Amino acid sequence: MSVTAPAGFAAAGVTAGLKKSGGLDLALVQNLGPLTSAATVFTINRCQANPVIWSRQVMADGVVSAIVLNSGGANCYTGRIGFQTTHATAEAVAARLDISAGDVLVCSTGLIGEQLDLDKLRAGVWEASLALQGDVAASPEAGLAAATAIMTTDTTPKQAEHRSPAGWTIGGMAKGAGMLAPGLATMLVVITTDAVLDSARLDTALRQATRLTFDRLDSDGCMSTNDTVSLLASGASGIDADEAEFADALTELCRDLTLQLQADAEGAAHDVAIEVVNALSETEAVTVARAVSRSNLFKAAIYGNDPNWGRVLAAVGTVSEADATFDPYGIDVAINGVHVCTAGEPDEPRELVDLSARAVSVVIDLHAGAETATIWTNDLTHDYVEENSAYSS
Amino acid sequence: MSVTAPAGFAAAGVTAGLKKSGGLDLALVQNLGPLTSAATVFTINRCQANPVIWSRQVMADGVVSAIVLNSGGANCYTGRIGFQTTHATAEAVAARLDISAGDVLVCSTGLIGEQLDLDKLRAGVWEASLALQGDVAASPEAGLAAATAIMTTDTTPKQAEHRSPAGWTIGGMAKGAGMLAPGLATMLVVITTDAVLDSARLDTALRQATRLTFDRLDSDGCMSTNDTVSLLASGASGIDADEAEFADALTELCRDLTLQLQADAEGAAHDVAIEVVNALSETEAVTVARAVSRSNLFKAAIYGNDPNWGRVLAAVGTVSEADATFDPYGIDVAINGVHVCTAGEPDEPRELVDLSARAVSVVIDLHAGAETATIWTNDLTHDYVEENSAYSS
Repeated sequence: MSVTAPAGFAAAGVTAGLKKSGGLDLALVQNLGPLTSAATVFTINRCQANPVIWSRQVMADGVVSAIVLNSGGANCYTGRIGFQTTHATAEAVAARLDISAGDVLVCSTGLIGEQLDLDKLRAGVWEASLALQGDVAASPEAGLAAATAIMTTDTTPKQAEHRSPAGWTIGGMAKGAGMLAPGLATMLVVITTDAVLDSARLDTALRQATRLTFDRLDSDGCMSTNDTVSLLASGASGIDADEAEFADALTELCRDLTLQLQADAEGAAHDVAIEVVNALSETEAVTVARAVSRSNLFKAAIYGNDPNWGRVLAAVGTVSEADATFDPYGIDVAINGVHVCTAGEPDEPRELVDLSARAVSVVIDLHAGAETATIWTNDLTHDYVEENSAYSS
Repeated sequence: MSVTAPAGFAAAGVTAGLKKSGGLDLALVQNLGPLTSAATVFTINRCQANPVIWSRQVMADGVVSAIVLNSGGANCYTGRIGFQTTHATAEAVAARLDISAGDVLVCSTGLIGEQLDLDKLRAGVWEASLALQGDVAASPEAGLAAATAIMTTDTTPKQAEHRSPAGWTIGGMAKGAGMLAPGLATMLVVITTDAVLDSARLDTALRQATRLTFDRLDSDGCMSTNDTVSLLASGASGIDADEAEFADALTELCRDLTLQLQADAEGAAHDVAIEVVNALSETEAVTVARAVSRSNLFKAAIYGNDPNWGRVLAAVGTVSEADATFDPYGIDVAINGVHVCTAGEPDEPRELVDLSARAVSVVIDLHAGAETATIWTNDLTHDYVEENSAYSS
């Protein structure tokens, strides 16, 4: 159930002292080969953190030998000093593992605009590299320690695993609880596989998977500066994976991690799946569903167990004609299976809707085509406000 | 200080029984002439309420003799029956005031998806029309009653007035506390003037004014289905207003009402002015400022008196290169006068920022041009969540 599930990977999670809490805060995952192929997807936020700027350079040749991740600071908007910190961290990993710094991805998560303590990072890298040398480094426990070290406001580590009958395996870990929005959610994800796949094939599979999973999680509409999803292949199984089978399995694993992120979103009381059906295109379905997922009024109503479908339609109506085709008075809305609105008029009584469970289904029928998409979001709660009004203080 | 301030207008606010609270809930404003020219701006939400659909038809000839407004129900997504209710309300006003129903604007505000009680509306119109016949109908008290009758979650009526040295006057009233977002905020606004101006000139002035005021209020990112801003001219002063002077005075009056709306936004603890300076164009400045105003994380931080400028830049970074020109690492941010970020790096300590007062200033310098724009927003608070999780229940 972790990044160490596939053969050819070692992991460690240690305490570098970056988190005030004193918990695990530095993770290191090494690809022991024989392959070192990799693919990544980064945030599309124009304000990119120093580790993202660094890691983009690393990906130029598609070769990754190790990835180092820290919580306790995002190293974003920290200028030249911050970039040097990222660079020096990669150099420290390279020296300890006898690899090239240009093959070391760096990820950071935490508060923006504060410098990381390089001495603590270096000491953490030293300790983690020692841990990598032991037999335990390929164990589930080592994977769990790494998954724990990347947590910020997450309440639980997030891991997933898939074993193919063909003989290869995928493992993954993720963090992310706030700033969850498209392109990507505020998340760090490391996925490992022992399948034999080159970087180009990994890239194709990873882009398909993230498009359908992480990119459709929109918990709070806020896009992060540090998002990185990485996929490393060791080839240690010696088995050439069927591309389609691998892509499907990867997508399923990413969906699993996505739903774990949704379930642990900051302060959330409901997990809401907004499904737009009968749209003219998948893109239009995503656009309409995302508009609803961004409505604070809708999200607050869900928190209050209030099936206020007028707020769904008011949000749908904000999508321009250029962005989605629909007759605003020809839309159906069902909440948890109750058809509260049919063709733009009240239908079944809203009192029939039971919102007491955590899972909520909203289905919006545009009657404009045959395409469907789902956006996963959460409600807007007191706990969300509380966590996010006190985060940096 | 009300819609009755200009000569040639009568107003009334009565209890029709639409609001559960039993308060004033129906307002009627009559233009006694000699002119009956008018201009309106409606929501750009594609899901438009029945009164908006009706009032657009009324505006085809630019003639408005009266406007009737109710709280206690939005009459949106109520289908054919809902449209008939709007139509019948206009007919009732026309019969009582001996005018054409085609010259009666109708505005409604409240919950979406519920039918209004036509019998109560008709009785309310009857009572309001009786009140219009008395001497008191042109008094400030009558204007205040009308301004009170359109309130929903507003805690206070909102009115403004401008007296030109040239001899004409503008008066206005507004409601709106939630669903405050562009194009327009969820608001109903009635502005009256006794200046001599035709409908085309009123339209030009009103569009300039709303573009710079109501359209720049983005309290919670949610766009309403019922927004209507109307401007009625009686010409009763007999004075031809200078167009430029009138437009400036109207803009100032709309800004006054806008800031009253911001100050009474649902659950807000801070009024935040987000000013983007040195943008390439005014449109780009608005786009960047609006992106920040939509960040729940930024808004929650302000609620927590936390000058978390990283969240400002993370929101700025979500604006695409097509939508705004800037170097993401060349931006300055000042909060309440403290330069917390200069050229994308930490500058003055964030601890110097005092956010204890209600008014907050955020200045974002893009260093990309010479244009400026301000968006007014509010923080994200427990009270906002509380009010909006319990609104329809």
